[in-house]
Amino acid sequence: MTTMAQLRERSLLGLKELSRNEIESILDRAAYWESHSDKMVPVLNSKFVANMFFENSTRTRFSFEMAEKRLGAQVLNFTAAASSVEKGESIYDTVRTLESMGIDAGVIRLKPAGVLQELAPHVSVPLINAGDGNNEHPTQALLDLYTMRKQFGSLQGLNVSIIGDILHSRVARSDLWALQKFGANVRFCAPESMQAPELAEHASYVSIDEAMNADVVMMLRVQLERHATGMLKSNDEYRAQYGLTRERAAKLAKHTLIMHPAPVNRNVEIDDEIVECPQSAIFNQMSNGVPVRMSVLERAMK
Amino acid sequence: MTTMAQLRERSLLGLKELSRNEIESILDRAAYWESHSDKMVPVLNSKFVANMFFENSTRTRFSFEMAEKRLGAQVLNFTAAASSVEKGESIYDTVRTLESMGIDAGVIRLKPAGVLQELAPHVSVPLINAGDGNNEHPTQALLDLYTMRKQFGSLQGLNVSIIGDILHSRVARSDLWALQKFGANVRFCAPESMQAPELAEHASYVSIDEAMNADVVMMLRVQLERHATGMLKSNDEYRAQYGLTRERAAKLAKHTLIMHPAPVNRNVEIDDEIVECPQSAIFNQMSNGVPVRMSVLERAMK
Amino acid sequence: MTTMAQLRERSLLGLKELSRNEIESILDRAAYWESHSDKMVPVLNSKFVANMFFENSTRTRFSFEMAEKRLGAQVLNFTAAASSVEKGESIYDTVRTLESMGIDAGVIRLKPAGVLQELAPHVSVPLINAGDGNNEHPTQALLDLYTMRKQFGSLQGLNVSIIGDILHSRVARSDLWALQKFGANVRFCAPESMQAPELAEHASYVSIDEAMNADVVMMLRVQLERHATGMLKSNDEYRAQYGLTRERAAKLAKHTLIMHPAPVNRNVEIDDEIVECPQSAIFNQMSNGVPVRMSVLERAMK
Repeated sequence: MTTMAQLRERSLLGLKELSRNEIESILDRAAYWESHSDKMVPVLNSKFVANMFFENSTRTRFSFEMAEKRLGAQVLNFTAAASSVEKGESIYDTVRTLESMGIDAGVIRLKPAGVLQELAPHVSVPLINAGDGNNEHPTQALLDLYTMRKQFGSLQGLNVSIIGDILHSRVARSDLWALQKFGANVRFCAPESMQAPELAEHASYVSIDEAMNADVVMMLRVQLERHATGMLKSNDEYRAQYGLTRERAAKLAKHTLIMHPAPVNRNVEIDDEIVECPQSAIFNQMSNGVPVRMSVLERAMK
Repeated sequence: MTTMAQLRERSLLGLKELSRNEIESILDRAAYWESHSDKMVPVLNSKFVANMFFENSTRTRFSFEMAEKRLGAQVLNFTAAASSVEKGESIYDTVRTLESMGIDAGVIRLKPAGVLQELAPHVSVPLINAGDGNNEHPTQALLDLYTMRKQFGSLQGLNVSIIGDILHSRVARSDLWALQKFGANVRFCAPESMQAPELAEHASYVSIDEAMNADVVMMLRVQLERHATGMLKSNDEYRAQYGLTRERAAKLAKHTLIMHPAPVNRNVEIDDEIVECPQSAIFNQMSNGVPVRMSVLERAMK
Repeated sequence: MTTMAQLRERSLLGLKELSRNEIESILDRAAYWESHSDKMVPVLNSKFVANMFFENSTRTRFSFEMAEKRLGAQVLNFTAAASSVEKGESIYDTVRTLESMGIDAGVIRLKPAGVLQELAPHVSVPLINAGDGNNEHPTQALLDLYTMRKQFGSLQGLNVSIIGDILHSRVARSDLWALQKFGANVRFCAPESMQAPELAEHASYVSIDEAMNADVVMMLRVQLERHATGMLKSNDEYRAQYGLTRERAAKLAKHTLIMHPAPVNRNVEIDDEIVECPQSAIFNQMSNGVPVRMSVLERAMK
């Protein structure tokens, strides 16, 4: 019988609540998996994992599925259109249903913020947050940290600029909480309409020119349609004011790493030819996602 | 070479045609699987099962997939939006196509009643009905019987009330046919617009108060949108007249078991807080679905 | 490290570029797999294949998935509605993303013609074309050739009529390129609005009566909605002028083989009762698709 405390230790709801030690041990184990020579290992044989995506994201689901299958787990995919499962109540019933059927862990992605935290204490299997509203996206931030640590050796004192739609970004939040535990300096850059008031005490907002002066520039995906009419009316305007254009990229320090959680809007938040330039770690981030998620899944079920 | 008679014995199109002995042997084997200590067993290794869902139902598909994978089978999911495969002819071509590709059994769910019975003799692999129109849903009824038998030891003389939209319910029909073979007393309770005329000779309709006086009260999912304007105009009205409200639940005999095929409309056919009360077997039903389906799948392919 | 040349040899983008010898060796290996007594073989254990369908086709995906699983590969399905991934750029990012995550091969189907050819040199894993625009559908043509060879022993001098919407048909093109390498005589038959001008120098257009005088009559799926208003206004008209009606079928030579890539529009391009008549190879084609794809997948990854 797994106790509630054990369950909490095996789940991964967010990085805010995780200690630096716990994060470090996940990253270390990811490094082990990255260097492992066998593509498949029988670590989670006979374990059943349900990928419960109440919000679409084929990329994240795919990355989890790779990780699950590399560890030998049995994978079941559950996708619900946002329309049919809108209320928290329905999400609760669905998760409890799949739990009743005997899954060993659930990877869950959902739109409403707060539902996952309410849900978790009622479920007797570990849950892994694959993105919940604008709250957290812990495995994305873990792979971001993994990518930075691999590049720079240490996160201590690292200057990281996160640029774009901070307001709606769970990635920005998870990265902020985790990076600060390691002594990194996080700064935000965003138009006023995309700033998150409740984060103002944790990180300062700087201009785009200041933001470019950093060890890491992390560009966020922009979804202009989410915003009420404001100062930024078009993709072109956004690109001109906040995009990582060819011109801005040319002025970056040679050691500055370009990151993006993907999918990229080419020529909006980042210019087409910059996406795969030598300083860009964007596709490396995706590669790193698999061993990081293997580490998280193993921690949940082993 | 499998003969037509063997194929008929391995298929599961409905419970009406099955003998009490056959049903009993499926339930006994399900009990074996429920108590089995290994999560995965190599019973159906190298067998290919296609889940062909011409009508959406992620829950039922998920339960079958769990059962298939626990038995070691290879699983292929085929989902067709009702819109693209509407005519019986198209369903026929699709099933024959998947059969040609070498599946060993097909789990099939479809909207039109009668199509499965026409189809089966033309297909050379066992078919398992996962719900066809308002005709039958045999694995749901099997898990219902399994749940009742586990609770009460025997089905003989058991008083079972089935309450709700009998007219459209394949669950009500499969339960009726199966329960009567075991000597249970089935009674229906439904507003006039939801009564099924052709079942009147098999079970009597009683008032909601009489229905509550039973060993099992099985609430059906209500879909008011299916009904032409009638006496019941709203969910609230339905709840007041036919719902398992807190008040009605409080008056149930202590031994009465509350069941529901799920998904539940909370606060319509059953009050929110009753869904997981101690007398409710709703999530047990879902758990029991997996060993029951393992038993049915093993019978189909072993 | 796989070189670009090796990668090109393992990929299957089209049959136009393949030598007769290469095609023959794929067909020979398919014959081996068809006759193999074990349903599953551990040839591609620990290999990860992504089925990337940017255009829906559950049948083709299902056939590939059967082939992949019979060879022991791990399968990940990626389906993108045409609407969300419309531009070649997005397809590029998606394929590169899945590649970054560590797949060993990709099966890809997409709408725009030309994109796959542009894409392939930028991807470091073998790609298998599962249909691209109206360009090629090589595995379909391979299974067609396999079916013909099995029936007639040799393709040399075989008279093959391909009837229907040549203009939009990638099947017609792949079959044309491949059959001519083996010395078969290909003739087309199509209403003027469905003729492909650029193929006129490779095969002649004949009347429907002439087309029926052949060793193989291959009927293509018709999608009248694709065509601007022309001479053929209805399915009935199409059937009367270009369909394989009961009357036309009755006059076929006894040895003539009826083929169709499926799914069939019954009573449009082919009459209902002809689909499964003794001269029809339509469901055999589907059966043959699995060993043919096993052969192609093995070639890509072994």
